[in-house]
Amino acid sequence: MFISFEGIDGSGKSTQARLLAEALRAEGREVVLTREPGGSPGAEEIRRLVLEGDPDRWSAETEILLFTAARRDHLEKTIRPALAAGKIVISDRFADSTRLYQGITRGDLRAVVDRLHDLMIGIEPDLTLIIDMDPAEGLARALGRQGTEERFESFGEGLQVRMRDGFLALAREFPTRCVVVDGARTADVVAADAARITRDRLMRTRDGALGA
Amino acid sequence: MFISFEGIDGSGKSTQARLLAEALRAEGREVVLTREPGGSPGAEEIRRLVLEGDPDRWSAETEILLFTAARRDHLEKTIRPALAAGKIVISDRFADSTRLYQGITRGDLRAVVDRLHDLMIGIEPDLTLIIDMDPAEGLARALGRQGTEERFESFGEGLQVRMRDGFLALAREFPTRCVVVDGARTADVVAADAARITRDRLMRTRDGALGA
Ligand SMILES: Nc1ncnc2c1ncn2[C@@H]1O[C@H](COP(=O)(O)OP(=O)(O)O)[C@@H](O)[C@H]1O
Ligand SMILES: Nc1ncnc2c1ncn2[C@@H]1O[C@H](COP(=O)(O)OP(=O)(O)O)[C@@H](O)[C@H]1O
Ligand SMILES: [Mg+2]
Ligand SMILES: [Mg+2]
Repeated sequence: MFISFEGIDGSGKSTQARLLAEALRAEGREVVLTREPGGSPGAEEIRRLVLEGDPDRWSAETEILLFTAARRDHLEKTIRPALAAGKIVISDRFADSTRLYQGITRGDLRAVVDRLHDLMIGIEPDLTLIIDMDPAEGLARALGRQGTEERFESFGEGLQVRMRDGFLALAREFPTRCVVVDGARTADVVAADAARITRDRLMRTRDGALGA
Repeated sequence: MFISFEGIDGSGKSTQARLLAEALRAEGREVVLTREPGGSPGAEEIRRLVLEGDPDRWSAETEILLFTAARRDHLEKTIRPALAAGKIVISDRFADSTRLYQGITRGDLRAVVDRLHDLMIGIEPDLTLIIDMDPAEGLARALGRQGTEERFESFGEGLQVRMRDGFLALAREFPTRCVVVDGARTADVVAADAARITRDRLMRTRDGALGA
């Protein structure tokens, strides 16, 4: 089973991915917790190349290619081996983030993103938890957090509003895969929701039934 | 006018690209001499990421994506601006090298290479000079040269033989764009040939006629 967390900056993706991994491990399941961009040594190097330096150093198209290269490496080196070993993979972001950030915010490149995904990646998560919340609140949380990679955050609240709408649109576009979770609650309450949705999905998939 | 040099390692691409640039500059033409992978600051960073380290660190597919990202940056930052300013661009390698190295030597990925090229690059040189020579001789020349990027050379003579055949097949596939030049002669004799072919092509293209 392959699970991704998506949502605007500060919505709690990293927090929830970690809490879900802990909950599933407490039930005796083997979990690989990973993130994008990055998630494998090569992909982390590409991540550094993309996220550091002048925000305008790469065009939207070059950035999409670099993120797709990183995702391909992440898939080959981390995700597929873990799934093949029967483990649950939880990724803090996956292709939906590229569909939105590179596809919408930097020119209308959704079609290019989709064609690259079909050609080089192919796989989708079995379950995508989209954490939804008020963009201003998410931005306040994100800015309160420590970190050097402020490139995307620096686009500000206007971007956050469009991103929230974009994630909700993706949830409508992929209704089987995506579940929207209200992120404007305490982390533990959100985590309980995420764990319940994941257990439901695990019970409904054969791998889940075998692994239970 | 956009010219590329292709051919096996040691065939004299870098030498001939430099000599052609000098010859055209001596005629008063503005020339941008560039190379792949690399050719722009961003693409050079990607080049380092691809060429340094363990030869197996990237899969063929990830490597193709990284080279395509580098080519896109090279195109945007170096090639297109120079062509738009009416300059002649000479590139030491371009997409044909990817068609062969990544398309043939590391799995039969030519179709993937072509689809990525169509989607993200699009442009072809107006003239591609393919320097042809005996693989053993090319390898001896290449090994006699100084340099740290020995990754591709380390594949040895078997690869060189397949590469030579591959370049000759590309010349047949793109007969209008590609001209095969015999590289087993002194550098000056090869350079005179390359300059003559380029002048012919320049006279037959409108930009060339205007620039003459
Ligand atoms: N439910 C929550 N309520 C309040 N603060 C939260 C909650 N979830 C996460 N945070 C805090 O908000 C900030 C952003 O959370 P994080 O998990 O890093 O979000 P994301 O990965 O989506 O950007 C962090 O400082 C985190 O501790
Ligand atoms: N026509 C030639 N005859 C003999 N040696 C040559 C000739 N052209 C280049 N060389 C030498 O062979 C080596 C490889 O040439 P180079 O231009 O670097 O080839 P490539 O770029 O195709 O790998 C260099 O040391 C160069 O000086
Ligand atoms: Mg995070
Ligand atoms: Mg060379």
